[in-house]
Amino acid sequence: MTTRPYWLNFDPQLDLMLERVIDVPVDRVWQAWTMPQHIKKWFTPEPWKTVDCELDLRPGGLFRTVMQSPEGQQFPEVGCYLDIVPQQRLVWTSALRPGFRPVPLPVSTPGHECAELPMTAIILMEPQGRGTKYNAIVLHRDDADRRRHETMGFHAGWGKATDQLVEAVKAM
Amino acid sequence: MTTRPYWLNFDPQLDLMLERVIDVPVDRVWQAWTMPQHIKKWFTPEPWKTVDCELDLRPGGLFRTVMQSPEGQQFPEVGCYLDIVPQQRLVWTSALRPGFRPVPLPVSTPGHECAELPMTAIILMEPQGRGTKYNAIVLHRDDADRRRHETMGFHAGWGKATDQLVEAVKAM
Repeated sequence: MTTRPYWLNFDPQLDLMLERVIDVPVDRVWQAWTMPQHIKKWFTPEPWKTVDCELDLRPGGLFRTVMQSPEGQQFPEVGCYLDIVPQQRLVWTSALRPGFRPVPLPVSTPGHECAELPMTAIILMEPQGRGTKYNAIVLHRDDADRRRHETMGFHAGWGKATDQLVEAVKAM
Repeated sequence: MTTRPYWLNFDPQLDLMLERVIDVPVDRVWQAWTMPQHIKKWFTPEPWKTVDCELDLRPGGLFRTVMQSPEGQQFPEVGCYLDIVPQQRLVWTSALRPGFRPVPLPVSTPGHECAELPMTAIILMEPQGRGTKYNAIVLHRDDADRRRHETMGFHAGWGKATDQLVEAVKAM
């Protein structure tokens, strides 16, 4: 049995992580992550947009976003909050629907059975001087999913989104 | 956005429920659910047995049991705790591994892709007189899984396990 907190169990084979110190205060970073009107401003790397966001900030609660491609195609994403400690830790998963229900099977196309990429995101933040030590960790079910997510552009995407978060906080 | 607590959102199309009033006190029922030495006594309907149990009672923590068939074949089950309120509510899922990691894909055999049956269990308890109002709710991802679990014997199995729980508590 492990006694270490789960959010400190980063596994480089299965997980991806962005680590930054950002020059905005932790209370504002928390707001940027937990208020739909802020999330829409920074959550999706440009030229994509977050055109809708709805959330219910409690364990088992809904975290829903709708991303839109530059061509106008929309991609709704539904997740479920797991662990919420204001200004410290925000955790949700796409492997469960709100109310902790396991996600339905994706509609399978031949050759693409189980083609989805379920993940759990752990956002950690703590004050550092006047800024914030900021970590975003994404857990995958296996090494293949981790590599796939990395190839899809995890580092560039989350990096740019974090730049946008900092800008959004400064404009609050 | 729903404001109702998730554990009150029973959906008869997707979920299964056992409801009982049992004549043992709620603090003992909680012990029976949260201490491995007790769980081994009642968790699996006879003639099956629970031969091993390990748990780490916190959100993100491990809930692991090993069931054994009358023929001696063993079936390990690993789940992750989601929500823990002593003597009130105990929630875990098989859709996540400990630390909230999405479960790896099952090893597929042709014709049985995605053959697993992920579920989330919600155990609710409250004092009623000297006994306990006791609810066990199981959430499934879709109607097909709910029906499959029902056909596998949910009601008889959980009913018998609950009888065993009451006996185990009386023998504590």
